Amino acid sequence: MARKEVTDVRRVTCLGAGPIGGGWAAHFLARGYDVTVYMHDAGEEAALRRIIDTAWKCLEQIGLAPGATRDRLTCTTDLAKAVANADFVQESVPEVLAVKQAVYEQLGRLVPADVVIASSTSGLSMSDIQARCPTPERTVVAHPFNPPYLLPLVEMVGGKKTDPAALAWAADFYKHAGKAPLVMTREVPGFVATRLQEAVWREALHMIENGEATPEQIDIAMVNGPGPRWAFAGPCMTYHIGGGEGGMEYCLDVFGPALKFPWTRLVAPELTPELRKTLIDSSAEMAEGRSFSDLTEERDQGLVEIAKAWQKIGKFI
Amino acid sequence: MARKEVTDVRRVTCLGAGPIGGGWAAHFLARGYDVTVYMHDAGEEAALRRIIDTAWKCLEQIGLAPGATRDRLTCTTDLAKAVANADFVQESVPEVLAVKQAVYEQLGRLVPADVVIASSTSGLSMSDIQARCPTPERTVVAHPFNPPYLLPLVEMVGGKKTDPAALAWAADFYKHAGKAPLVMTREVPGFVATRLQEAVWREALHMIENGEATPEQIDIAMVNGPGPRWAFAGPCMTYHIGGGEGGMEYCLDVFGPALKFPWTRLVAPELTPELRKTLIDSSAEMAEGRSFSDLTEERDQGLVEIAKAWQKIGKFI
Repeated sequence: MARKEVTDVRRVTCLGAGPIGGGWAAHFLARGYDVTVYMHDAGEEAALRRIIDTAWKCLEQIGLAPGATRDRLTCTTDLAKAVANADFVQESVPEVLAVKQAVYEQLGRLVPADVVIASSTSGLSMSDIQARCPTPERTVVAHPFNPPYLLPLVEMVGGKKTDPAALAWAADFYKHAGKAPLVMTREVPGFVATRLQEAVWREALHMIENGEATPEQIDIAMVNGPGPRWAFAGPCMTYHIGGGEGGMEYCLDVFGPALKFPWTRLVAPELTPELRKTLIDSSAEMAEGRSFSDLTEERDQGLVEIAKAWQKIGKFI
Repeated sequence: MARKEVTDVRRVTCLGAGPIGGGWAAHFLARGYDVTVYMHDAGEEAALRRIIDTAWKCLEQIGLAPGATRDRLTCTTDLAKAVANADFVQESVPEVLAVKQAVYEQLGRLVPADVVIASSTSGLSMSDIQARCPTPERTVVAHPFNPPYLLPLVEMVGGKKTDPAALAWAADFYKHAGKAPLVMTREVPGFVATRLQEAVWREALHMIENGEATPEQIDIAMVNGPGPRWAFAGPCMTYHIGGGEGGMEYCLDVFGPALKFPWTRLVAPELTPELRKTLIDSSAEMAEGRSFSDLTEERDQGLVEIAKAWQKIGKFI
């Protein structure tokens, strides 16, 4: 299937005018695309425009692409018209499998065959969503993180009938459009980010349930401790830096035994030589030649920016 | 025990010249205190001054207290002299119980009886550390998060012989000195923040071990998804906002069933009416009357600041 170059995409159609669909619309408008939003009911337009106006105040501060304007938004309740000229379709209709399947059955006929259709679903599998779609090979999951106009993550995976080339094209497109695509090789319930988030949430619930911490203490701990570091470096790079000159390897040698400690209710896997090597090699790769002192300086500068932001707008508790 | 007012503290003594002791020294210097650092070997002074100089570049950007200067640092290898005039002692010697116990045995005699001695320990219990201390009632755990000059969290707890008044005084002092104290009512292994961090780390290790995600994907997911939100709002407030106008209650009603999903390897506790009520009440309290739209605006402004920081210094991957 010959597709447009990702740099040639001009028209993006967003299906659904709720917080996710509207958030996507704001993002694509800010990146300079012509955006069409399909909504079920014309009465949703006012709320959609409020979502976009709210987002726009943020997007202006971060910087708009040349030519980006809210005037390039079109709203319609005509699905065929909404997608007829689309270069890319982002679907964010309600999270109900029967609804999604019915929509994809129509989209499969209405959307030009070379155009990728991406679903914002957070919990359904593309194999299920695409089941009744006549052209399922160009349908992919592309799950954003809320709010989609501020958080870059897009977790991506195909369904059984998805063409891997469509998935790869969509990842390239998102990257070009200012997002951080994470392409998964298989459908994992909760993808990656939600799993990490849920791990924290479940441990927190256990602690609250057992009187070990109050909800307020949980939030104080996160915001003033691990949270700010995770805004710049993930768990692996955080430990790679935490290991000092010795990096991840030193960190695993020193803190490896702590995996046996009852520091959470989740038992850790065995730190096998293979797992150890994967962590050490990947961390070195992600460091891209930066020394411990380079990385520390970057981390500290990130935390300085957060401290300045706290002075400006405060924390939530 | 009559103690100084926390606002009258002038002289802080830091024991240990490593990254934690040095980080504390930088923090207290930046807040305008006279700081004495005790080190085992005078040869450590050069490395200590490098730690403080590095920290200072950050601290100047965030803003120094009036009169704060690195000239108010004194280094000594004489423990008695280091603590004789201290108004507060922050101990960060090596994490070896026998070493800490020997130090506290001496400190118990050398440090004026009305002065609180706080340990930076991340894993030992104060009940053990204070076992041989002749004046244990004023010894507390005060565990910082690295780097101590940028992350505000101080997790605090007493030992069996600790006077609760000493713990309360120390929490007030830290608050006055620009930190975010979290006072725990009992000794929980891993405190709160490390537990949340370990929950993420263990789930990540399982995912890597099982080929569900690479270390790089773990880091991409965190930095571009939940991480930036957690720099301003903890897990509870994040869901309180995620629930829209309905707040935490709506969120629990809609996403409560997801606690049964296999979204992490950690099984969640039962969402009992009591746990549900605790979460809802605490979230409302933390919101302090702010509406959904106030909170959303604050969250978004926080994420804008992080997006600007990313533009300036990048992410780690």
